[in-house]
Amino acid sequence: MQFSDTELASLPSRYRANLMNTLSGYKPANLIGTVSPEGDENLAIFNSALHVGSNPPLLGLFFRPLTVRRDTYENIKKTGYFTINAISKSLFRKAHQTSAKYEKEVSEFEATGLAPQYINGFPAPFVEQSPIKVGCQYQNEYPIEENGTILLLGAVKFVALADGLIGSDGTLSLDQAGIVAAAGLDGYALPKMLDRLSYAQPGSPPHSLKDGA
Amino acid sequence: MQFSDTELASLPSRYRANLMNTLSGYKPANLIGTVSPEGDENLAIFNSALHVGSNPPLLGLFFRPLTVRRDTYENIKKTGYFTINAISKSLFRKAHQTSAKYEKEVSEFEATGLAPQYINGFPAPFVEQSPIKVGCQYQNEYPIEENGTILLLGAVKFVALADGLIGSDGTLSLDQAGIVAAAGLDGYALPKMLDRLSYAQPGSPPHSLKDGA
Repeated sequence: MQFSDTELASLPSRYRANLMNTLSGYKPANLIGTVSPEGDENLAIFNSALHVGSNPPLLGLFFRPLTVRRDTYENIKKTGYFTINAISKSLFRKAHQTSAKYEKEVSEFEATGLAPQYINGFPAPFVEQSPIKVGCQYQNEYPIEENGTILLLGAVKFVALADGLIGSDGTLSLDQAGIVAAAGLDGYALPKMLDRLSYAQPGSPPHSLKDGA
Repeated sequence: MQFSDTELASLPSRYRANLMNTLSGYKPANLIGTVSPEGDENLAIFNSALHVGSNPPLLGLFFRPLTVRRDTYENIKKTGYFTINAISKSLFRKAHQTSAKYEKEVSEFEATGLAPQYINGFPAPFVEQSPIKVGCQYQNEYPIEENGTILLLGAVKFVALADGLIGSDGTLSLDQAGIVAAAGLDGYALPKMLDRLSYAQPGSPPHSLKDGA
């Protein structure tokens, strides 16, 4: 089955959105925790978190155009802080529910039963039940002129991990933590590790790091 | 286990890179196909493809700083075109091998046994074995001043899908295609669908779309 650019342009918008949202493959699934200057907590599911760099440690979030109320974006811009919380298998239904259009004053934490947690005075709420919690400070933003989306960068200031998740080389065992991946706009999948492969070198096929090298 | 910002900054760089590359969760795994103006084909694995928008259809790729030779980036800038090809379970070892530092004149297609495929005159090579093939035209780029990375946007001009992958609502069955997700710098995982959930509404929990609604 094939689509040309003119065929893509003439697809019904919801159909094209579903296609485009699965076209690049699986996405990360995270809950973004913020609080307004007035103290209203907010929690929102995002599948656009991305690794931008490790030195300095930077993560990114893509925001859709600011044509409707975006509590998460507003809270980050006003307070300067947000949290990124991994979604595990036991949390994905509650995490999905945070995408409902609650009023600004309604806490998605309360509405879904996910518990806000404040750690070490970090000024944004984490999700207590999440096995991977990342505290970020607003760093910069890049408005995307093509469609009004915004790439927002956060500097990683704090990380809290469930016991036993981090390996001796710093890699997190996402599968051991039961972290889910997002598939399109409404799908959730549980990945099972196939292998870790050695640093690739010309002329020799990669070997499994599970073999111990 | 916790890391403060000063502890993160003092980690060994490889350890921190492994941590940062798993911190935001699973990533998409794709092969990017390009060709130089001289006709040298190139194939490279990327775990940074992202959905930027569906109207117009835009995908993004993050490039690391241009401090070393980046054939994929150079080819895209010179020719204006690239392909994004999903990595299925049977392809991930060959896909990983494309990350070896081959000379510019060496085709990673030839070196790994992945077959270049030209479709409908599109001016960049697809991966014949891939179940999801996307042809993109260079649209724009956003240099990230914090670390020298580059967000490059491509306009989706062509899509070719294996039989039976697209649902009636436009969603691709990534799990049915055996598409893998990337876990960090060297891990590959096979996701299994947990559920698809209905559009979230305040006051009522989401229901499974598999139940048929």
